[in-house]
Amino acid sequence: MLNVMPRRIIIIGAHAAGVDAAAAARKTDRTAEITLISKERRVGYSRCGIPFVIGGHIPRFDDLIVYPPTFYKMMKLNLKTETTVTHINKDAKTVETIDKNGKTETLPYDSLILATGASPFVPPIKGKEKQGVFVVRSLEDGEMIDAAIKAGAKNAVVIGAGLIGLEMGVAFVERGLKATVVELLPQTLPAMLDADMANIVQAKLEEKGLRIIVGKGVSEVLGDEKVTGVVVGDEQIPADILVVATGIRINSQLAQDAGIALGYYKGILTNMRMETNVKDIYAAGDCAETVSIITHRPVLYQLGTIAVRHGKVAGTNAAGGYSVFPGALGSCTSRMFDLESGATGLTEAMASKNGITPLVGTVTSKTRADYYPGALPIKIKLVFDKESEMLIGGQIVGGEDVTQRINALSFAIQKQMTLRELVKADTAYTPPLCETWEPMVFAAETALRKVR
Amino acid sequence: MLNVMPRRIIIIGAHAAGVDAAAAARKTDRTAEITLISKERRVGYSRCGIPFVIGGHIPRFDDLIVYPPTFYKMMKLNLKTETTVTHINKDAKTVETIDKNGKTETLPYDSLILATGASPFVPPIKGKEKQGVFVVRSLEDGEMIDAAIKAGAKNAVVIGAGLIGLEMGVAFVERGLKATVVELLPQTLPAMLDADMANIVQAKLEEKGLRIIVGKGVSEVLGDEKVTGVVVGDEQIPADILVVATGIRINSQLAQDAGIALGYYKGILTNMRMETNVKDIYAAGDCAETVSIITHRPVLYQLGTIAVRHGKVAGTNAAGGYSVFPGALGSCTSRMFDLESGATGLTEAMASKNGITPLVGTVTSKTRADYYPGALPIKIKLVFDKESEMLIGGQIVGGEDVTQRINALSFAIQKQMTLRELVKADTAYTPPLCETWEPMVFAAETALRKVR
Repeated sequence: MLNVMPRRIIIIGAHAAGVDAAAAARKTDRTAEITLISKERRVGYSRCGIPFVIGGHIPRFDDLIVYPPTFYKMMKLNLKTETTVTHINKDAKTVETIDKNGKTETLPYDSLILATGASPFVPPIKGKEKQGVFVVRSLEDGEMIDAAIKAGAKNAVVIGAGLIGLEMGVAFVERGLKATVVELLPQTLPAMLDADMANIVQAKLEEKGLRIIVGKGVSEVLGDEKVTGVVVGDEQIPADILVVATGIRINSQLAQDAGIALGYYKGILTNMRMETNVKDIYAAGDCAETVSIITHRPVLYQLGTIAVRHGKVAGTNAAGGYSVFPGALGSCTSRMFDLESGATGLTEAMASKNGITPLVGTVTSKTRADYYPGALPIKIKLVFDKESEMLIGGQIVGGEDVTQRINALSFAIQKQMTLRELVKADTAYTPPLCETWEPMVFAAETALRKVR
Repeated sequence: MLNVMPRRIIIIGAHAAGVDAAAAARKTDRTAEITLISKERRVGYSRCGIPFVIGGHIPRFDDLIVYPPTFYKMMKLNLKTETTVTHINKDAKTVETIDKNGKTETLPYDSLILATGASPFVPPIKGKEKQGVFVVRSLEDGEMIDAAIKAGAKNAVVIGAGLIGLEMGVAFVERGLKATVVELLPQTLPAMLDADMANIVQAKLEEKGLRIIVGKGVSEVLGDEKVTGVVVGDEQIPADILVVATGIRINSQLAQDAGIALGYYKGILTNMRMETNVKDIYAAGDCAETVSIITHRPVLYQLGTIAVRHGKVAGTNAAGGYSVFPGALGSCTSRMFDLESGATGLTEAMASKNGITPLVGTVTSKTRADYYPGALPIKIKLVFDKESEMLIGGQIVGGEDVTQRINALSFAIQKQMTLRELVKADTAYTPPLCETWEPMVFAAETALRKVR
């Protein structure tokens, strides 16, 4: 008679990393008892979709729930929502929880996965506690912003011109509001693009009616109880809605309290199996640091793609399987109005910051044969390491098929393709969809001219 | 005093390979005397664009002329049109020409580039000499077909379901004709896709009103002077236009007569510098054989992308520079109606034919996040070598961004990415443009499941 206790796996957090961890754990161990614990009422949804609901592209916020209740049933996952983990006891291998009714429990685990994510960081701006000031992280955040628009808001200000900030600005314009994005740094999308590329994005968004102010901060939020405007330099900008999208802070307190080591960026430190320094405790997603495939140094990419990959690896290992996460390139892409843009690897500025002398190739080309109507201009910037001539980064603004060009560059970086190899690369062609000389190859060519 | 005779470079052929060779030669040697010789009146045009003019996507056939007369002037190229090279004297290093007025010349060269291309092959079908029977190679061919449509043609039949054949069939439907494509082999696109993938293309084109008959040949062309129909098996199909797109025959007679060696497929044999077995004579484009990056065996890809790359290498070397062509993968792509499809490397069938045991991963997914409206279904088939687990081929049908996915797979093949590496690849994501798990990664995952 087989009499083995089923493996008990607890996962704290039930979004991209947590749910993918649960699914991977289930595939690895069919008899494990897997429990997902979330503070939220609704779980398993896509945060990345929130600006697109606000912008009117997707009908309802609940549409963003990628994993419906039937999923948890089918995968035999216990799901505890509106429940907070208050303490991890790593020696006893238990977690303590409290639910919305105040009921506490102590749950034992064999493996524990921390997918605690991150929280929006709101800088200490005077007046930031007023009504009408929002962040963008949960469905509730999105719903509150949507309600404010429906209640007649006319002016929106967004602080922060990262992807979420700009996407929110675009969403407000799409909903007919007058919208302004204010960024303290001298360019938009500083974590994604070099200034020369970001400036094109900025100009395109401005053309479509989004006001963007760079190099200035919001010094004060105006209004009595409710926000009525913000102060930017000498200017007062009216605002019924103020969205703060200035970045996030990792939810690592629970881990820290349990004696789990944090890394350089104060994210949870893990090995390649996403294991923390405490045996049988794993971390995945926005709360976990990762390593750059290029520099081999810690990085903190908070991307859905990395969260699901972290989750899959952590879930497999937590369930007794074997899987490693090899590191990340931070490949990302966006579409704002009709403008696509994307990036992978290091920008020129990031390369320099990492001590790498960049060799850069840039080209402006178009997406179809000369004679084929409807071609769009596309700008591609490639960054190579000057010594090895290996591709270490790519940025694309405009055109069509940007996402898959980014994936092509990502594959090339992962496989250490050199400048000279990329110049010779075999690419596909048909007049309605591309050129005989692919712009990525052209961009490499411009870099090659600098060295030969 | 510097007194050096300028290098004399003659290029026979002035389309993709010839013109790109001339441009590369000019960039390599600013003082060379470069002469392009073409039998045609119009040169430097895109053959690939012809079906799209016929289909009505591009206004005029002359729009396909990518290199206008100003280009030759700017690049200081001598262009001799409507001139035929009748003989190459490799010992004297001269070519003999005859122009449209019967005037002959003997032109000396230091370097000679053969970019003689290929000609449509018309199989010996009874009645093939009738009026209304066309091939698709030159602008004149396109203009004659267009004139026949304008003269009131109602029914078109195309023999051959390769890319050109299908694109012509689609163009006829777009112009309001009843169109039928007849293919002797049991599937469409046999040089590009496996049957399982090609069948999806076939079904989609049929849905849009193109009739496709596979596994049958045209046994007879009906009509008196003018074609009125064709016989396919027991059936007579009416036709005012019959297009023969059953492949091409390499224009290698001139080379053969000069004692230049041909290869396995009777294309001109070259080394990596596109040099033939005769010193100072190069070959480029459709007339030249190339080598598969995967199998290292000869292949005969007749693609514009390869022609321009051949041309660039040949032109650089012919002008005293140094450049090599590393081989090809045959990456290609197409859009017919709204259906995109593409391929790179080996199909499953080609792998088997080359003695490679294929390991296949196939996935049907979609092009956007679940909740984002407008996602299209996409089917991806990946072929790996079973022993090394290296990616050796990819095929995609449907969806969006197919071309750049093919490029991504092409880069991966070039850099010998393995199944296990592709499963871990870093990809970009945003709800309107793609999924968190890129379908290419999913397809690799399905192959991995078979081996672990």
